[in-house]
Amino acid sequence: MDKKVRIAIIGASGYSGEELLRILNQHSAADLRIVTSRQHAGKPVGSMFPRYAEVPLNFTAPDIDAIAAECEVAFLALPHGLATEIAIPLLNKGVKVIDISADFRLKSAAQYEKYYKDKHPAPELLAKSVYGQPERYREQLKSADLIACAGCYPTSIILAASPLLETGIVETQPIVVSSMSGVSGAGRKVDLPYLFPECNESVRAYGVIKHRHLPEIEQELSNAAHGASIAMNFIPHLVPVNRGIHSTLILKAKPGVTLADAEKAYADYYKDEYFVRVLAPGQLADIKHVTFTNRCEIGYTYDEHTGNFIVTSCIDNLTKGAAGQAVQCMNIRMGLDETLGLRA
Amino acid sequence: MDKKVRIAIIGASGYSGEELLRILNQHSAADLRIVTSRQHAGKPVGSMFPRYAEVPLNFTAPDIDAIAAECEVAFLALPHGLATEIAIPLLNKGVKVIDISADFRLKSAAQYEKYYKDKHPAPELLAKSVYGQPERYREQLKSADLIACAGCYPTSIILAASPLLETGIVETQPIVVSSMSGVSGAGRKVDLPYLFPECNESVRAYGVIKHRHLPEIEQELSNAAHGASIAMNFIPHLVPVNRGIHSTLILKAKPGVTLADAEKAYADYYKDEYFVRVLAPGQLADIKHVTFTNRCEIGYTYDEHTGNFIVTSCIDNLTKGAAGQAVQCMNIRMGLDETLGLRA
Amino acid sequence: MDKKVRIAIIGASGYSGEELLRILNQHSAADLRIVTSRQHAGKPVGSMFPRYAEVPLNFTAPDIDAIAAECEVAFLALPHGLATEIAIPLLNKGVKVIDISADFRLKSAAQYEKYYKDKHPAPELLAKSVYGQPERYREQLKSADLIACAGCYPTSIILAASPLLETGIVETQPIVVSSMSGVSGAGRKVDLPYLFPECNESVRAYGVIKHRHLPEIEQELSNAAHGASIAMNFIPHLVPVNRGIHSTLILKAKPGVTLADAEKAYADYYKDEYFVRVLAPGQLADIKHVTFTNRCEIGYTYDEHTGNFIVTSCIDNLTKGAAGQAVQCMNIRMGLDETLGLRA
Amino acid sequence: MDKKVRIAIIGASGYSGEELLRILNQHSAADLRIVTSRQHAGKPVGSMFPRYAEVPLNFTAPDIDAIAAECEVAFLALPHGLATEIAIPLLNKGVKVIDISADFRLKSAAQYEKYYKDKHPAPELLAKSVYGQPERYREQLKSADLIACAGCYPTSIILAASPLLETGIVETQPIVVSSMSGVSGAGRKVDLPYLFPECNESVRAYGVIKHRHLPEIEQELSNAAHGASIAMNFIPHLVPVNRGIHSTLILKAKPGVTLADAEKAYADYYKDEYFVRVLAPGQLADIKHVTFTNRCEIGYTYDEHTGNFIVTSCIDNLTKGAAGQAVQCMNIRMGLDETLGLRA
Repeated sequence: MDKKVRIAIIGASGYSGEELLRILNQHSAADLRIVTSRQHAGKPVGSMFPRYAEVPLNFTAPDIDAIAAECEVAFLALPHGLATEIAIPLLNKGVKVIDISADFRLKSAAQYEKYYKDKHPAPELLAKSVYGQPERYREQLKSADLIACAGCYPTSIILAASPLLETGIVETQPIVVSSMSGVSGAGRKVDLPYLFPECNESVRAYGVIKHRHLPEIEQELSNAAHGASIAMNFIPHLVPVNRGIHSTLILKAKPGVTLADAEKAYADYYKDEYFVRVLAPGQLADIKHVTFTNRCEIGYTYDEHTGNFIVTSCIDNLTKGAAGQAVQCMNIRMGLDETLGLRA
Repeated sequence: MDKKVRIAIIGASGYSGEELLRILNQHSAADLRIVTSRQHAGKPVGSMFPRYAEVPLNFTAPDIDAIAAECEVAFLALPHGLATEIAIPLLNKGVKVIDISADFRLKSAAQYEKYYKDKHPAPELLAKSVYGQPERYREQLKSADLIACAGCYPTSIILAASPLLETGIVETQPIVVSSMSGVSGAGRKVDLPYLFPECNESVRAYGVIKHRHLPEIEQELSNAAHGASIAMNFIPHLVPVNRGIHSTLILKAKPGVTLADAEKAYADYYKDEYFVRVLAPGQLADIKHVTFTNRCEIGYTYDEHTGNFIVTSCIDNLTKGAAGQAVQCMNIRMGLDETLGLRA
Repeated sequence: MDKKVRIAIIGASGYSGEELLRILNQHSAADLRIVTSRQHAGKPVGSMFPRYAEVPLNFTAPDIDAIAAECEVAFLALPHGLATEIAIPLLNKGVKVIDISADFRLKSAAQYEKYYKDKHPAPELLAKSVYGQPERYREQLKSADLIACAGCYPTSIILAASPLLETGIVETQPIVVSSMSGVSGAGRKVDLPYLFPECNESVRAYGVIKHRHLPEIEQELSNAAHGASIAMNFIPHLVPVNRGIHSTLILKAKPGVTLADAEKAYADYYKDEYFVRVLAPGQLADIKHVTFTNRCEIGYTYDEHTGNFIVTSCIDNLTKGAAGQAVQCMNIRMGLDETLGLRA
Repeated sequence: MDKKVRIAIIGASGYSGEELLRILNQHSAADLRIVTSRQHAGKPVGSMFPRYAEVPLNFTAPDIDAIAAECEVAFLALPHGLATEIAIPLLNKGVKVIDISADFRLKSAAQYEKYYKDKHPAPELLAKSVYGQPERYREQLKSADLIACAGCYPTSIILAASPLLETGIVETQPIVVSSMSGVSGAGRKVDLPYLFPECNESVRAYGVIKHRHLPEIEQELSNAAHGASIAMNFIPHLVPVNRGIHSTLILKAKPGVTLADAEKAYADYYKDEYFVRVLAPGQLADIKHVTFTNRCEIGYTYDEHTGNFIVTSCIDNLTKGAAGQAVQCMNIRMGLDETLGLRA
């Protein structure tokens, strides 16, 4: 651990940026050099994040040359669209880019345009980027220069469904997913629907049909299902907790499949995975088991009444769903122990 | 309103009992005479419920003769099993019984035994009871002596699905429902899982396959679907709010059916219903719109991608899901304006 | 109740406006004619407040002539400063003004300027306005044309302290008050500190020395203390609940004073007050006993160890602390039963 | 770090026990050997605490000989009274005891009896124990065999007040403290007042006059004030957060004292303290800055209007207020870096 990884966080004033700060601050091989925020440039990090007042850095405006001169790795925690703008020059100057936004997750520029209502600004990079979900793309991540970290809802869903789809013990349709997210999932967005009195004592669905995470989830479930086409329902809900995503999946068992088949599928798939905890059949995931951790907790059971598997899956949207998974990807890319800085 | 209805609440120290107190206390035709609680017998109502300290009643132990002598109507807010024990002698003495428990909701004693793990103590009453959901059984309620009020989850789900099933524009399977309930739905049960720190910042599913409300929901959806058999997934979750249920339903549209068909189905079904508010297509229900009201709010949309309808439905579990609906049933049975005491 | 009071709400899109809507909507002598909001002019009230979708009104831009032509009473729920601008022409045209803002509460224009950092726009009205706290100014309210409703913190504190100060059984200094408010107390203000993740799992003081309610509280406590000068500590805190204020007061008993003296003081002071509930000595107030009511709950005890009285006092900041008290004032001014529309 | 400290946690199934598990699990010099719980003996730790499912230990019933044979240090997380029973034989067998209960905090057996309503079971140990607050008793802790960890409220208050009292810039009376605690402060106690719906949307004072922490706070403030007698008001409140204590202190400045004197007092007192963060004058503490950390955050300001200092102080009641401070004490006692395992 003599040589530390020199790191920049670009767009550090939101919740994902704060979570990167939390993790990298206690990561023994991380040397955090640059933390950018246009809005807060010049102010100490501690002025925005009193928890991390001991971090001896000021926010700066993003400066490509300075980042390239000082850092090997840049985490991008920017709104979609902006990430591409910064990623291109950084990649050109040899900085490894780990993007937490959605800019490089979809392989299809057409799907991007359909869901994000904009032409993709650099479609040639879509083929180059590696999807940042280590449990599924570990080998490719080892040499990736552009990592498109999996989204929060997608992470909770893909990890839960992949063992069943890849072993072919469930049908590829219908698939129904009902997810619940804490309010930090909306980002540090100053907007009426996210005020405390608008969220507390409230539960509501949103983005029911056209949520931007839908094509990402379908793309990856299709990959897990060996290319079979996927058309699913994904229904996200906002619930009054700070952090955490709970996803409930309903998948149809193929004829003759039993609970034991699922048990074997999960056990095989995750036997060497530190960050995925599969519960005993019948047990149920709870977000309070995973908040502030990089872990995904998965519970599953088989319902004879309908012939469906019910799978529950929980992550912390800011950790395994964003900053934690991003650091896990960095550890892999830089040849470090994959769990470094992420065990607490 | 010269003559008021003389009323007893049996088992009044839980959350449903408290909600009955809240409603009847401001109901201009209610004359609340007896409020029972074995545990708190002798104490003023206000000692348990400081909000209602002005109610000039003491809890008493339940006394069948006293209730029969003083009251026309008894609301039972008792644990299942106990309700039957009290209901039989009250009915025999001519008191109208409005039961908030699950004892008389299922028409099949076999289903009761399967889900409640006990033989039903009075199966002959199952045929006699009327299901307490006014929007569907108003006529029968007008002369019912034993009313089995619909459960909280069932109310949110049956009201949401019935227009689609009754008009036959959706398939009877698959049906998937993901529901979220506030913690008061568990009752005033002093048990570790319901402590504040165990529920706050937590989201979890429970009773995933064998929830006791499942046969009740299937029975009523089957009735709505003109007797077609229903086998559905119902997945309840606990979320950190005090009150409210949010249900999300996924139902398969029959070939050729459009959003306009659903729009017509809902509009026709609920055009005269004061307590059901159907939102414009694409809008979504929110429990914060209905807490402390007797209203069910329903939103729906059609997803071309999968050919499914997505329906969201919200109620207050203690009001429309329990005490409010019970009072609505009483109003109907006693020939009063159905909305009396329930408009606030 | 043949003739109803014709009413306008000016600035109705915030939380106090919504609460006025809630109360007036179920008030049997209220005829709500005009509801203004510059920002939402033209939209139905239900588009902003789905709970009140049945209110058959659209927001309009405020129009003095229209209000004067249609309404006898105007409730102002505007930011401070703006209220005066609207109040002057309304008063000139004979409309009774009930102001929920702080514009007319202070009798001293100098104090206004010190705490609000602006010259008062109409100091001559300060003498004319009556402080809208019925328990202390009922007689004056009966003929007031400009009512300056008491603030939320002040209401909780003044009602708790007045019996002790007026009977002279406590010293006028030191007085220490620690208050906790729900987040709706900040108004429907779209600002970072009020986002759900910034308030949930957070407790913090604010406005510690210079809170704008301080001079208002001191003015009224001085009145209660027969003109004695008051210099107190008032420390407000933000806590993660939607509604409610809890104030804890520490006041020094004069030599020889006992708990019985306080008991007599409270009993005498509030014996005819419907909206103040004094608990038995030693019992403690709880905001969950008063939310959604117009009640103030007061608990008190005497601490021999220090010779101080400890008083706890709870209100709903939007009801007794704003809209409810405003309607109570209207009832008094218009010769109605003071509790009309406020008993629920 | 070759030789690790062999550790037992006695009474590990409550919230303090869980927090000890969280900390020791990531503490590089801790070798956790024994985790006891009479109620859960035989079950894996992960069955009670799914977050820590990887901890390869089962709960056992407490066995003094086994603990003495295996462990150097025992943390006691037991109800008061029980702690003494276990501490005596462990001390006799040479095990260092770090007690999180209140059994050994008071130096006066009479005060113990007055507030705990029981004779102290081993008054001779009161003189022997060292008060477990490293910022004030570091030297004594280096050789203590019985450490009585400071309580949660006391920690937040003593750290906030000591610099002012010790430098003599404030009067020793009056002192008023208003504190707010998260619900985990009540322990994992299955009791009606701590159910989610009883705490959520609620704020209430409790233990107003006779809270058991009062004599502990007064004892230590007296020590800080060079033995001056202290009689103060301490008013705790329950607020709906999981973790965290916020204390607000009002102390009277001596004549001529200025804000600069306080600034110097705090700076001098805490200049070398890793776990105390003093904010700039006028800034205010927030529990969300310290949850899940071992830090105490202190803000202070001077109010010219009353001549009082207002001090706000926040800790996590389970970390700096219990388990974290206990581990800090252990680090000191065992000659380790004081911050080991506590920096995250």
